[in-house]
Amino acid sequence: MPVNLTLPPAVPVSGVQLATVAAGIKKDGSPDLVLVQLAAESTVAGVFTQNHFAAAPVQIARQHLEQTQGAVRAYLINSGNANAGTGSEGAKITTGHCAAVADALQLDSQQVLPFSTGVIGEQLPDEKIRQGIRQAAGLLGDDWRSAARGIMTTDTVPKISSRQIDISGTPITITGFVKGAGMIQPNMATMLAYFFTDAAIDAADLSQALRKAVANSFNVVTVDSDTSTNDACVLAATGQSIPLSAASDHWPDFQRTLNELMLELAQALVRDGEGATKFITVKVNGASSEDEAKEVAFAVANSPLVKTALFASDANIGRLLMAIGKVSVQGIDQNKVKVALGDNAELTLFEHGVIAPSYTEAQGSAVFARDEIGIVIDLAMGQAGATVYTSDLSHDYVSINADYRS
Amino acid sequence: MPVNLTLPPAVPVSGVQLATVAAGIKKDGSPDLVLVQLAAESTVAGVFTQNHFAAAPVQIARQHLEQTQGAVRAYLINSGNANAGTGSEGAKITTGHCAAVADALQLDSQQVLPFSTGVIGEQLPDEKIRQGIRQAAGLLGDDWRSAARGIMTTDTVPKISSRQIDISGTPITITGFVKGAGMIQPNMATMLAYFFTDAAIDAADLSQALRKAVANSFNVVTVDSDTSTNDACVLAATGQSIPLSAASDHWPDFQRTLNELMLELAQALVRDGEGATKFITVKVNGASSEDEAKEVAFAVANSPLVKTALFASDANIGRLLMAIGKVSVQGIDQNKVKVALGDNAELTLFEHGVIAPSYTEAQGSAVFARDEIGIVIDLAMGQAGATVYTSDLSHDYVSINADYRS
Repeated sequence: MPVNLTLPPAVPVSGVQLATVAAGIKKDGSPDLVLVQLAAESTVAGVFTQNHFAAAPVQIARQHLEQTQGAVRAYLINSGNANAGTGSEGAKITTGHCAAVADALQLDSQQVLPFSTGVIGEQLPDEKIRQGIRQAAGLLGDDWRSAARGIMTTDTVPKISSRQIDISGTPITITGFVKGAGMIQPNMATMLAYFFTDAAIDAADLSQALRKAVANSFNVVTVDSDTSTNDACVLAATGQSIPLSAASDHWPDFQRTLNELMLELAQALVRDGEGATKFITVKVNGASSEDEAKEVAFAVANSPLVKTALFASDANIGRLLMAIGKVSVQGIDQNKVKVALGDNAELTLFEHGVIAPSYTEAQGSAVFARDEIGIVIDLAMGQAGATVYTSDLSHDYVSINADYRS
Repeated sequence: MPVNLTLPPAVPVSGVQLATVAAGIKKDGSPDLVLVQLAAESTVAGVFTQNHFAAAPVQIARQHLEQTQGAVRAYLINSGNANAGTGSEGAKITTGHCAAVADALQLDSQQVLPFSTGVIGEQLPDEKIRQGIRQAAGLLGDDWRSAARGIMTTDTVPKISSRQIDISGTPITITGFVKGAGMIQPNMATMLAYFFTDAAIDAADLSQALRKAVANSFNVVTVDSDTSTNDACVLAATGQSIPLSAASDHWPDFQRTLNELMLELAQALVRDGEGATKFITVKVNGASSEDEAKEVAFAVANSPLVKTALFASDANIGRLLMAIGKVSVQGIDQNKVKVALGDNAELTLFEHGVIAPSYTEAQGSAVFARDEIGIVIDLAMGQAGATVYTSDLSHDYVSINADYRS
């Protein structure tokens, strides 16, 4: 059961057509292949996993994006098999699938980006996917929700959302869908995430917008500190509405709206994190740099002892202190650090080197019993800050990952 | 149930007297206060946690060790309360206890090292401990096993062991006892660990021997990636047997024996790790530096997805690749990395970018079903290596830490 995960209805983006089929990659016969076609005017930007075992489709998608300088026309996405740890054979199969999509849609192979998610170390079922491509090419349409469902693995619900902004009287739409519930601590990238806007934006501006939005959304969430081999986040501008450039007055509006949508969907990954019973926001203020703030926030957000205490609704201040203190950041002074609960730090837990005299266990227990908890840490060293989102560590996390061959 | 944890009988070290009492710090009334007296000729070396929230006793023990230049005469160790996050009041209480021990044993306060382990953020029960000190001072004797039991928290068994070496016909004894089962990834230090030898060794040589031995024992184990606020490891030479110096021919023998004993007891922490059902050795070869080898080994040893797969006896090669690949080490090439199982890499899992053609799931499952598993990773980048020891992530780990207020 995801933690308070309700998303607004998704708005289709003009210039995008989708088809979702069950190609037989997943053993249970559920939908596992999504084909996306983009209008001829489209530009695409993408960021990918930094994992050294980057999957074959990640390597090929990176190449194709570079070769076309963002003039991409189609995505082929499968769930159920990651095509990672599959060597040159895995790359050959995926290259063949890009050619098959290009044939079916009358494109160049380089205009197709491939994506995979699922089990690592097994070859893709080549012929099944070729059949799936032929089937999907005849079904392209407007069913966004099925596409969001077709890319799921251990996710319990599809995650798709939209924003609209008005620019000089013209509405611009941004819609995104994402998947991912475990192996989640994206590193300069994300799990599979697809964003689309109908604005016309050149590839360089689009790439800049994507990187900014990812930095404070997908790159600040963690379920289990593990970075996938297949993370990818791509943003397509279909050019069906008005042009937008980074130099225009409306750009900040666009960037802010994109940031909001990405953050909503990045948080959706955590709310639907494997075994999650709580959604936790860790905010670090007063750091010397944003990197140091993030290091402290991730130390707390990834500590197994903090996460099990959160699962137990145990107001365990000691474990918070331990996790803050274990980082390599220089200059943290335990007599200056302040730790509080609540998004606005309403309840002070620890200051001046001791548990706050005003704090009572009953107050702490009341907050820790909630399903959304804000932890605010002030390092009293500087002006920088960062916020990280995480879930708790429950019996279900162990069960899901002891049972599932991911 | 610890994993294959059998230790040889402990041999008392001449020049060491111990007493263990139940001072009433632990709620269940079990022994929680240990007093150790060292012969007048003794020298002591110590290493302590690098956690920024280092506990009051850690700060005071560091000072006393420095002030006396290793001429320490007594330890006061309590379990059940860590005296961490307790500010100046916590330091004042501990300073008072050192004075009380000095009174009872006719020493200077600085000759007493204090140690605490247990709940973080609560003040020590001052009067109960003062009574315990008076009681213990009258009970000093030779009961080593009770002392090893008196320092336990979530440990399920006491961990104490010995080695003896013959130096020019004179036997030298080294005996150590340790505690710790969770919040275990010591950083340049360890959990509470006490080592004693009857040799006469000056403080500088002793310190050098301690640091060398810790580097490849307590600093290469992890249960849950969390670094305690109270880690400490001290080595005392009581001077009751022959003198030994770093310049002597016998020194390599002494160092090697100390290394062996520390590694045995560091491994004992992991074998008795919270919820542990398996003992896992992660060996990384072919790295460019020892630090990079350790980074890769710890990434695998701390990955929640690897640890849950190990708990499930699931030969999940993909998760091993993911964990190796997520590190920041530059230059790892997935087509050159080799992953094998068995202490001597008998079963190749992955090489040349793919699952080894010779590998069968049945072979992998047979190895993963064992309670001791060796994972060997060759990065094929250089000549450096490192070995890290860890346990799995089980339902019991979550239960223990969701129930226990540590």
